[in-house]
Amino acid sequence: MKKTDKNTLFKKLSKMASDAKEASRRLANLSTEKKNECLRSMAEALLNNKDAILASNKKDLKMAKDKGLSGVFLERLSLNDKRISEMAESLKELSKLVDPVGNEIKTWSRPNGLLISKVRVPIGVILIVYESRPNVTSDCIGLCFKSGNAVILRGGSEALCSNSAIYDVLKKVILDAGLPQAVINLVKIADRKAVNALLSLDQYIDLVMPRGGESLIRQVRDRSKIPVIKHYKGVCHVFVDKAADFAMAQRIILNAKVQRPSVCNAIETLLVHEAIARDFLPTMIEALQDARVEIRGCEKTRKMVKGIKKATDKDWGTEYLDLILSVKVVAGIDEAIAHINGYGSNHSDAIVTQDEEAADKFLKQIDSACVYVNASTRFTDGYQFGFGAEIGISTDKLHARGPMGLEELTTYKYAIKGTGQIRE
Amino acid sequence: MKKTDKNTLFKKLSKMASDAKEASRRLANLSTEKKNECLRSMAEALLNNKDAILASNKKDLKMAKDKGLSGVFLERLSLNDKRISEMAESLKELSKLVDPVGNEIKTWSRPNGLLISKVRVPIGVILIVYESRPNVTSDCIGLCFKSGNAVILRGGSEALCSNSAIYDVLKKVILDAGLPQAVINLVKIADRKAVNALLSLDQYIDLVMPRGGESLIRQVRDRSKIPVIKHYKGVCHVFVDKAADFAMAQRIILNAKVQRPSVCNAIETLLVHEAIARDFLPTMIEALQDARVEIRGCEKTRKMVKGIKKATDKDWGTEYLDLILSVKVVAGIDEAIAHINGYGSNHSDAIVTQDEEAADKFLKQIDSACVYVNASTRFTDGYQFGFGAEIGISTDKLHARGPMGLEELTTYKYAIKGTGQIRE
Repeated sequence: MKKTDKNTLFKKLSKMASDAKEASRRLANLSTEKKNECLRSMAEALLNNKDAILASNKKDLKMAKDKGLSGVFLERLSLNDKRISEMAESLKELSKLVDPVGNEIKTWSRPNGLLISKVRVPIGVILIVYESRPNVTSDCIGLCFKSGNAVILRGGSEALCSNSAIYDVLKKVILDAGLPQAVINLVKIADRKAVNALLSLDQYIDLVMPRGGESLIRQVRDRSKIPVIKHYKGVCHVFVDKAADFAMAQRIILNAKVQRPSVCNAIETLLVHEAIARDFLPTMIEALQDARVEIRGCEKTRKMVKGIKKATDKDWGTEYLDLILSVKVVAGIDEAIAHINGYGSNHSDAIVTQDEEAADKFLKQIDSACVYVNASTRFTDGYQFGFGAEIGISTDKLHARGPMGLEELTTYKYAIKGTGQIRE
Repeated sequence: MKKTDKNTLFKKLSKMASDAKEASRRLANLSTEKKNECLRSMAEALLNNKDAILASNKKDLKMAKDKGLSGVFLERLSLNDKRISEMAESLKELSKLVDPVGNEIKTWSRPNGLLISKVRVPIGVILIVYESRPNVTSDCIGLCFKSGNAVILRGGSEALCSNSAIYDVLKKVILDAGLPQAVINLVKIADRKAVNALLSLDQYIDLVMPRGGESLIRQVRDRSKIPVIKHYKGVCHVFVDKAADFAMAQRIILNAKVQRPSVCNAIETLLVHEAIARDFLPTMIEALQDARVEIRGCEKTRKMVKGIKKATDKDWGTEYLDLILSVKVVAGIDEAIAHINGYGSNHSDAIVTQDEEAADKFLKQIDSACVYVNASTRFTDGYQFGFGAEIGISTDKLHARGPMGLEELTTYKYAIKGTGQIRE
């Protein structure tokens, strides 16, 4: 790429981000009623333009097939009537959720009479870098719009026709409502340098959320001058304590591993208390194998159940995203906690136990976003938590942890009312 | 520096950070009572070791004088009986504040019976990079300790003897209490490469807070793989609306500019509504000049008051930290808001007005951490807000905004209690 082209690209994106900042100030003060009305119109517009969106999606699918991309990839990329209806439904649902903007988190007065309010406000401009799912386009536009944030979307180049079609439909709604177009933005430049240019624009963009595989997320983190909220991966655990209800443990483990193995809140490692391992593990492993799960075990596991592959040190930190489970027998709860904090990804981890003291210790000492007692890790999800919507899951510790909904897309400011107070 | 030396440095710091992470897990679960007891012992130990600390401080002062450092610098660096007593007093005060750790932010149950609690927990390991004030050493140790965070301190090389003396006294208290030393850490390596090495250790360190001049903060931000919370500078404003009480406006402006001009919450620019500028400005400027403030005005200001220096575009974005004030006459509140959001630093800005509608508009549309109506910007301060302590002020939007106390040194996790729930 020539230097002039690079400058042109940077100028174009810089203008987009600066316009988004400007537009975000308008959006931040838009009434809830007006936002909800727009969301309903967006939903309707998607349904009315279904054919055009599907036609654009066909173009993407053809190109992806010509490139020889995998079946899984094509599945993620493809839209159909049902998926478009679901996108529209999500937008309608968002219109019904409580608007967090303007909410007074707390208000107190000082001895000098100052009245201090901590008030929820939008973050400002949010950049989303994502991969091939076109529904992310409308979901993120809806979530950012409802929470009063301008959004800049940068989807995978393989989905560019689909994303553009969806975006153009929603942009028309924004313009028809008399709002500045720059409240929603789609980067239609396939060049990868576009992402790097965006990640340097910290004077305009307040937050970047990368969604996709670990390598995409690491690239964004390494390049970004803008604060990033993310999760690299989910290496989740179930620990079966010596005081566990075996039937409950088996039900939870099967659910957490098998129900949907390709997601971040599925478990990758099972830890079992030594005192009950011999009674619990053989039946458990049989049930997992019946569900076509490949087991990789520690030495003790392999002595109890024959014909099991050996787990290496690498296994304990691996997110299989597949029907594979590593299994380790531990001396007790302390070893289980140390293992999870050492090898885990601070995402979601569960203990199965009837012992309240053990449950309490696990809840306190496991350093993860979501810590479960007697429940499946698969519940780490904005909808399951009752947030109504989710823009992602954070394993970071700053700003937001775990499932992120509308509230997590806001920050706060202090509004201070006085009657002429000065500082002595 | 030879490559082997660099590797040794990196290994040493990496070990320090990894030990701090380990120790932070212990500290996270320490009882409030035990923490308070340690804080009281720390206060006592500082007083008992006053002479040794003052002797070390003398060494730093001699070296700084020999280097020819400025009087302001020496003043910041120097300790005396009173300053050490204040440091001890702060630690005692911290022992009386409410412990945020373990606080249930909210708890709710789901239709399937899951009980979800959002619970405050420490952030983990916090790195503080600061300049020449030795009292920051004990203040930060106290704040991080009370909020359950391990801390790594990296002060300016000119204060190394003083910081080491303070640290060694507090470390002894930690060891005497049977706690791991690594809950508090001081980097005693003067080499600047130490900071860069620390900023790469994001697997162990959860947050970095740079405290000092803008160039130090920019260096940290540019180098860091760890999330940074910061404020570069405070370009704060007072806007005098057409419906202002003139006497109140004058009192607030004098306080915000003159009471302590060297701090980030002092104002740098005064904006005045055109409709009252002719009546208000001449007297105001005279009062400021009487207080030895140099005025730099816009064209309109210079027409109303003779003999004033011209403000350039650069002035509007400058943090003088001195008795200098830029003054601009604006057409109305919209221009004032656009000016503040455009040139300001999102720190603290005030409107003086008796018009509730104008006040409300200003509160809503100014994109700053602290927005004031009829009060001085000088109140942006943890103590003034009633937080009892302050580790810094954030102009960032993520995690924490404005003055940061103990609560802002925590994050949360979700503790979920079930009775065997699995996901359908």
